[in-house]
Amino acid sequence: MGKLIFIGLGLADEKGITVRGLDAAKDCDALFMETYTSTLSAGSLERLERMIGKDIALADREKVEGGVDILDKSKTSTVVLLVPGDPMSATTHVDLRLRAHELGVDTEVIPGVSSLTAVPALLGLQIYKFGQTVTIPIPEPNFRPTSFYEKALENFEAGLHTLCLLDIKGDENRYMTASEGLGELASVENEMRKGLITEDRIVCVVARAGADDALAKAGHFRDMSGQDFGPQLHSIVIPGKLHFLEAQALVKLAGAPEDLIRD
Amino acid sequence: MGKLIFIGLGLADEKGITVRGLDAAKDCDALFMETYTSTLSAGSLERLERMIGKDIALADREKVEGGVDILDKSKTSTVVLLVPGDPMSATTHVDLRLRAHELGVDTEVIPGVSSLTAVPALLGLQIYKFGQTVTIPIPEPNFRPTSFYEKALENFEAGLHTLCLLDIKGDENRYMTASEGLGELASVENEMRKGLITEDRIVCVVARAGADDALAKAGHFRDMSGQDFGPQLHSIVIPGKLHFLEAQALVKLAGAPEDLIRD
Repeated sequence: MGKLIFIGLGLADEKGITVRGLDAAKDCDALFMETYTSTLSAGSLERLERMIGKDIALADREKVEGGVDILDKSKTSTVVLLVPGDPMSATTHVDLRLRAHELGVDTEVIPGVSSLTAVPALLGLQIYKFGQTVTIPIPEPNFRPTSFYEKALENFEAGLHTLCLLDIKGDENRYMTASEGLGELASVENEMRKGLITEDRIVCVVARAGADDALAKAGHFRDMSGQDFGPQLHSIVIPGKLHFLEAQALVKLAGAPEDLIRD
Repeated sequence: MGKLIFIGLGLADEKGITVRGLDAAKDCDALFMETYTSTLSAGSLERLERMIGKDIALADREKVEGGVDILDKSKTSTVVLLVPGDPMSATTHVDLRLRAHELGVDTEVIPGVSSLTAVPALLGLQIYKFGQTVTIPIPEPNFRPTSFYEKALENFEAGLHTLCLLDIKGDENRYMTASEGLGELASVENEMRKGLITEDRIVCVVARAGADDALAKAGHFRDMSGQDFGPQLHSIVIPGKLHFLEAQALVKLAGAPEDLIRD
């Protein structure tokens, strides 16, 4: 009997995988890596192949959503699908798992480190004080949704922090920068005028969470927007009501202005 | 110059650590492991010591909150504090990081897998549809807070899922079971009578997230309460409005009643 194992690769590069994930990858018959819902830094795939000692076939959107190759192999052998971050955060992977299950294929999930917890951790913000997570989409000529702004506003008014993930179109090699994301927030603010984004609003950016050169920065919107935070992936956090220790962390560890502590 | 590195051990046992975390642990001068905000399964510490090739000193609440030993060593050498799960989810670690910073000690955070994302993943629930996370406290004779119920109710009324972490008192070796947690929810329901918990309410339990024998189960409250889900750690999820794929996952992968799909 075959098996399909979803393994989270965690963050940044080949070193984000857990020991449990690495062991399972070494033991399997065939490896695929999903490349469109997130990404690792350049060269990670090759280094991961060396670590595992096996070739990894790339799986783009078509290959995962179609699933034919992966599911066919899973019927008779142990197949691993490697997914950057947590292996189940995109619905497409849940769908693939359900289809495997329908075919009578055993499935297993080996969780990975997710930016959903790593980004708050790097900023010193308490994960329990976050409301619903949003994604800021890459704007299209005739498509500019505003629901991310509305949800972030709701969180903010309830005193909660908002993690804003930035849109990824891996198939097109497009990864939104924090600067673009802050620009989108400002655009929607201009339209909606609800006061979520002001020049004085404290916003946070985490770049390359989990990498050796990870960056966590906080400051007034006017100072943060337009900054270059280096290579992607980036995320934005809009803090709600800050606990004293959180304010201290943003000032001491992420360079926020000192008056955040006094306020 | 010294350095203090916070490394997340991830879930379940010694295999939950990332390769990046393991490499940093191998390279450091002294290792501590925090043992009261969460825990790994029996024997994990010894296996972790063998994997790293170094002794690990246990750090209880006093040792971490006092911090003297850890901070003293960090002034002149590279010290690692190993923390089950994500290394920054308890405020006490943020506090320790700030104190190290005050002493001029460099700090670094190597994120770990957290139950906050692994539990939804194992159930096939979308992390983006969760509201604020709550913790159900171990009740004390004269202390039975109800805020966890109120927050979960708020999430539920907004259509959002709630992850209920279960209280851990590692220093006393007490880890709330799902059955106890469901009992607490029912007790507070009896008091508040807001209708969050009914006999028919679908609730989910994840036991041993990240372990080889992880269990994900969903069902009516009346069937789930009183069940034995095996060894801890356990978590509870109260689903809000379910997407079709989420309902399917709960039925097919977690044993929820079939009518969840038809509803």
